[in-house]
Amino acid sequence: MSILYASDTSRGAVFAEILASEAPDLAFHIGTAPDPATVEYMITWQAPDLQDFPNLKLLFSTGAGVDQFDLAALPDSAQLVRMLEPGIAEQMREYVTLAVLGLHRDLPTYLNQQRKGQWKFDKNHMAATRRVGVMGLGQLGQSVLQALAPFGFALAGWARSPRQIDGVEVFTDLNAFLARTDILICLLPLTAETEGMLDATLFAGLPEGAMLVQVGRGRQTDQAALLAALDSGQLSAAWLDVTDPEPLPQDHPLWSHPRVILTPHIASRSRPEEGARFVLKAIRAHQNGQPVPGAVDRAKGY
Amino acid sequence: MSILYASDTSRGAVFAEILASEAPDLAFHIGTAPDPATVEYMITWQAPDLQDFPNLKLLFSTGAGVDQFDLAALPDSAQLVRMLEPGIAEQMREYVTLAVLGLHRDLPTYLNQQRKGQWKFDKNHMAATRRVGVMGLGQLGQSVLQALAPFGFALAGWARSPRQIDGVEVFTDLNAFLARTDILICLLPLTAETEGMLDATLFAGLPEGAMLVQVGRGRQTDQAALLAALDSGQLSAAWLDVTDPEPLPQDHPLWSHPRVILTPHIASRSRPEEGARFVLKAIRAHQNGQPVPGAVDRAKGY
Repeated sequence: MSILYASDTSRGAVFAEILASEAPDLAFHIGTAPDPATVEYMITWQAPDLQDFPNLKLLFSTGAGVDQFDLAALPDSAQLVRMLEPGIAEQMREYVTLAVLGLHRDLPTYLNQQRKGQWKFDKNHMAATRRVGVMGLGQLGQSVLQALAPFGFALAGWARSPRQIDGVEVFTDLNAFLARTDILICLLPLTAETEGMLDATLFAGLPEGAMLVQVGRGRQTDQAALLAALDSGQLSAAWLDVTDPEPLPQDHPLWSHPRVILTPHIASRSRPEEGARFVLKAIRAHQNGQPVPGAVDRAKGY
Repeated sequence: MSILYASDTSRGAVFAEILASEAPDLAFHIGTAPDPATVEYMITWQAPDLQDFPNLKLLFSTGAGVDQFDLAALPDSAQLVRMLEPGIAEQMREYVTLAVLGLHRDLPTYLNQQRKGQWKFDKNHMAATRRVGVMGLGQLGQSVLQALAPFGFALAGWARSPRQIDGVEVFTDLNAFLARTDILICLLPLTAETEGMLDATLFAGLPEGAMLVQVGRGRQTDQAALLAALDSGQLSAAWLDVTDPEPLPQDHPLWSHPRVILTPHIASRSRPEEGARFVLKAIRAHQNGQPVPGAVDRAKGY
């Protein structure tokens, strides 16, 4: 039995150290395993050919997303597991709060004026008059809503199935949700249904001048439609952490659009120390026949 | 008896409407009063010559700051009153949270990279490792600390006299406070003691690479020393809402410094509706011989 860590080597060294001290019974390899047939647990972002690992039991993503894996290539006997560590939600709360407050307080406009040395201001809007809406009400979406609540925004969320969240109006009807949303936050996982979902039709369903925070996946955004919506004024600003492709080519018009703030997929990155402890917890659960935290529903893809 | 509103006319119209409906017994003038001797209450940002108003009882600032008034010119019989309306604290919480999260998450660096079309990232720091410190622990300072608490920053405050604030380490020793502060927030009122206080000596007392959020008053900052501290790396970034002078001249180097984010004094602006209701409450308290909310201590200047 062994664990294979097939990702960034310096992060792998942190895993090695923590597992050596907290689980010396588990053989741990970085990069390649001497005998692939012994590998029962693999931690990776891009999976190698899984046919070489006939005894794989748990395949861990190094991040919260699992859309990079081909679920069809994963043997039925193996389970896919997303990284669940508290740091991921903490960073996402920080990033989305930063983006929502930045859009609410017209930061893109003030940054443009700063470049020109222009001292000019408009009135501040009250948070209660800003209708903020989150698409994707999983662990991250709920955590983000909790962080935004103290500022007094009018909060709503959209999900495929109804649910109760204190202080949040939950919609299952996408059109009704969009029509009431001034600042839209996309926290959806990438699936066949969400790929290309942020398109001209969706933008047209928002009130004129709405704003977008995209922290899901780049392939959910029709970037040509996004640029068109920004240029027509249908969207007044966008704060993006994910693009298609990544890295975004240096000459892409999103980089230089005056009403876009763009960061290089840094909203939330898992920390190796906490990641290693989560992996160990999940392996012990699996060994003891208990439910594995973070296990992905194959039918849903998240 | 009359009230004189001597400031922005469109905001004055909002005051007129609210006072006409809620206090029809009070004569209200915008701009000038037919008989200055009848003026007992004045609302203004820049006071006219107060010798012309021998019966002035309350002089209201249109904002939270009162440093623009010459207290020596105010007759002993009159009280100076700062604007206390909930919107001021709400906006300040938003703005300072935006600035602290922006600095914490390296927004100045990512904005510079965006301008160059550069996709590059460094690791995210945990909020618990960021020591945030607030100078000025009045109503606004405490409100800001409360907004920052859920993010998990290590919080401290500095004030001249000791006090208890839950979850906040309060210092009266300025040097000890500065030495432990990675992100410094200045929310001090402008007084003889705080003018020029953010100088080379103060910056040198912070850990190397510290960051500044300046939402107090521009004349508290030695701007040449600030630029020197940014260039030497003693400060790694600054987020400024106040400058000296205001407006800042278009060719001033602060506008274009790559590690400065600068907004045109918009952190917190009082709203005329709420301002009018506050003024009415204060006038009624004065008429009934009760303590006037927002009354300024002349000796302290705030």
